[in-house]
Amino acid sequence: MFSTRITKLLGIRHPVICGCMQWLTRAELVAAVAEAGGLGIIPAATFDSIDELKQEIRKTRQLTSKPFAVNVTLIPMGRPFSHAEMLMAAIDEGVPVIETAARDPQDYVDMIKASGAVYLHKCARVRDVVKAAKLGADMVTVVGFECGGHPGRQDVSTMVKVARAVNAVDIPIAAGGGISDGRGLVAALSLGAEAVVMGTRFFAVRECPAHDDIKAALVSADEASTGLVLTTLEPVRALRNQVLDRVGELENKGASIAEMYPLVSGRRGLKAYMSGHADDALIPCGQGVGLIDDIPTVAELMDRIMSDAGMAIERVEAMVSVPNQRG
Amino acid sequence: MFSTRITKLLGIRHPVICGCMQWLTRAELVAAVAEAGGLGIIPAATFDSIDELKQEIRKTRQLTSKPFAVNVTLIPMGRPFSHAEMLMAAIDEGVPVIETAARDPQDYVDMIKASGAVYLHKCARVRDVVKAAKLGADMVTVVGFECGGHPGRQDVSTMVKVARAVNAVDIPIAAGGGISDGRGLVAALSLGAEAVVMGTRFFAVRECPAHDDIKAALVSADEASTGLVLTTLEPVRALRNQVLDRVGELENKGASIAEMYPLVSGRRGLKAYMSGHADDALIPCGQGVGLIDDIPTVAELMDRIMSDAGMAIERVEAMVSVPNQRG
Repeated sequence: MFSTRITKLLGIRHPVICGCMQWLTRAELVAAVAEAGGLGIIPAATFDSIDELKQEIRKTRQLTSKPFAVNVTLIPMGRPFSHAEMLMAAIDEGVPVIETAARDPQDYVDMIKASGAVYLHKCARVRDVVKAAKLGADMVTVVGFECGGHPGRQDVSTMVKVARAVNAVDIPIAAGGGISDGRGLVAALSLGAEAVVMGTRFFAVRECPAHDDIKAALVSADEASTGLVLTTLEPVRALRNQVLDRVGELENKGASIAEMYPLVSGRRGLKAYMSGHADDALIPCGQGVGLIDDIPTVAELMDRIMSDAGMAIERVEAMVSVPNQRG
Repeated sequence: MFSTRITKLLGIRHPVICGCMQWLTRAELVAAVAEAGGLGIIPAATFDSIDELKQEIRKTRQLTSKPFAVNVTLIPMGRPFSHAEMLMAAIDEGVPVIETAARDPQDYVDMIKASGAVYLHKCARVRDVVKAAKLGADMVTVVGFECGGHPGRQDVSTMVKVARAVNAVDIPIAAGGGISDGRGLVAALSLGAEAVVMGTRFFAVRECPAHDDIKAALVSADEASTGLVLTTLEPVRALRNQVLDRVGELENKGASIAEMYPLVSGRRGLKAYMSGHADDALIPCGQGVGLIDDIPTVAELMDRIMSDAGMAIERVEAMVSVPNQRG
C-alpha cells in the first residue's frame, strides 16, 4: 500500500522491517515476513559457526524467493569467528540485504558495497546516522529509547530522534522503537521516515519460535512492563521480571560484568525462550509490548498493520478542514 | 487547518496547546497563542497571591478575546493558599478552560464542572487518563517520557503512551512530549490524538519572557541535551548543565530534598530565566529542544507548524500507492 524509497531499495511491498532478534528471527519467521511483503533479518549472532549461518541462509531461501537480510552486530560476541567472516558468509551466499549495527561500520563498508548487496546500518544516535550516510550506507535504521534490546545510551525517544535523523541526512530512514501497529507506522512516516522496524510486535506472532508461555507474557505486559538494565555498559530494555530486578540491584552495587554475566547471557535467554519460563532470563522487548494483545500469524499481522495504517491516514485526512473554514 | 473534537471543545482554530510553564506562560505569551489560534495556559503556580492570579487573568483577557486556560497543578506548592482557592479564582474570573494536573483531581471535579468551564486533566500514566475520563474530564493531556518538566515515573514514551491512551478512553486526547513541529503534530494525530501540547517549542519564542540568553541556550541544545533528575521524588526533565549534574550527584548520594532544594527551587529558576544565566538553575525543557533552531514570534511559529503539518500529510499521501499497484 505504500511506496517509499525504502520499499523500492529493498524490493518489498510494505515499509515494514521485522527487527532482528537473536534466537528468534530464524528462517521460518524471516521467510514469513518476506512472503507477507516485509523485510526479515537473520541475526548472525544466533549461530555457533559460519556453517550454521550459511545453512540458515539457504533454508530461508528455500522458504521464500523474496528478499531478506543478514545482520552483523559489531559488538564483541565471544565467538571463534570474526564479524568480517560473518559478513563474508552472507556475501558468499548472495544475501541481497546486509545490515550492520551498533558500532562504527567503517572497516566493513567497502566489502559490503563491493558485493552489490543493499547496505543498511542500524544505530541509536543521530551522529551515527550521519556517519553511516557519509560511509555510503544506502539507508539507516534509527531506534529510540523505547525500543527493545539495545536503545543506546542517550535516552532519546523515537519521536524526537527520527525527526532529527531525517533532518540530518539525505538517505532514507527506517524508524524503530515503540511502533507496534499501523498508527505507529503512519506516525513514523509523518516524521519523515520511509519504513518502520518492529521487533517486539514480531516476537508475539505464531511463526516466532519462542515458547507460547513467553508470548503470553508479552500479551499480558503493558507499556510500563519494561525496564532498562546494564545502563553503564550497553543498555538493554527487557521485560520487568526477577532477573531484570536482580541485575539492576547488582548494577547499583557496582558489580562487575563477570558477576552479572550468568544472569544476562544470551544462552540463558535462549533457554528461557524455549522452555517458556519468562521469569528465568532477560527477555528483551520494547515499550510497544503495551500495544500487543494477541498472537496472530505474520500474514494476519501485516494485513492488520496495513489496514490500520489506511484508517489512520483517513482519520487524519478527515481532520483537515477546507481552506475557507480557516480563521 | 484541522478540525478535531478538541478544536471544537476548546473553540480554537488549530489543535495546538502551548503547555503551561511556570514563570513563562504569562499573559503576553498566552494571549499571543490565543490570537494565533491555539490554546495558552496560565499556571496558577506562578503567582504569590490569589489576587495576582486574578490580575493576570484580567490582563490576559484585555489582550485577547479568544479562549485561554488556567492550570492548577495538584502538588504541594508551599503557598499560603490552597488548590481549591486557585481553582475558585479561575472560576470566579470566568476562565473558559480549566486544567488540573499531576495528582488525582477527584476533589475538584464537581466544582470545575459546575462552573461550566471546559475541564481538562494533564497526566503521565494511562491509568490516570482512565481515572480522569471516569471522573468526567472533557479531555485529557498525556505526556511522554521525553517531555520537559514532569514526565512522570514510568519512563514511557509519547509514541507508545498516546496510542495506549487513545485505546483506553473515549474522550479526546492531547499528546505532549517530543513534539516541536508540524511533523510531530501529524504523527500525534496519526496515533489518534486530537491535539498536541508543545511546551519547549513555545519557550523559544519572542513573546516568552525569558532572557534572550536562555532562549539561545535552547537553540544551541540538541536532542541529547536534557536529563532527568529527582527521579525518586518527582522526576524533572531539564537542560543538562552544572546544576542538573550537581543535583544528580546529590541524589546518587541519597541527599535529602532539603539539601537539594536550594538548587532546584522555582525561585532559582525564575532568577536564571530573567538574568539569562542558563547554568545557574534547572531549566526545564524536553527532548524536542533538539528540533528548535530559531526564536520566531508565536504567529510565525503557528503558521510554520500548520504549513509543515500540511506538507507532512502530503508526503504521506504521496507514499500511498494506488490499490492496483499492491503486490
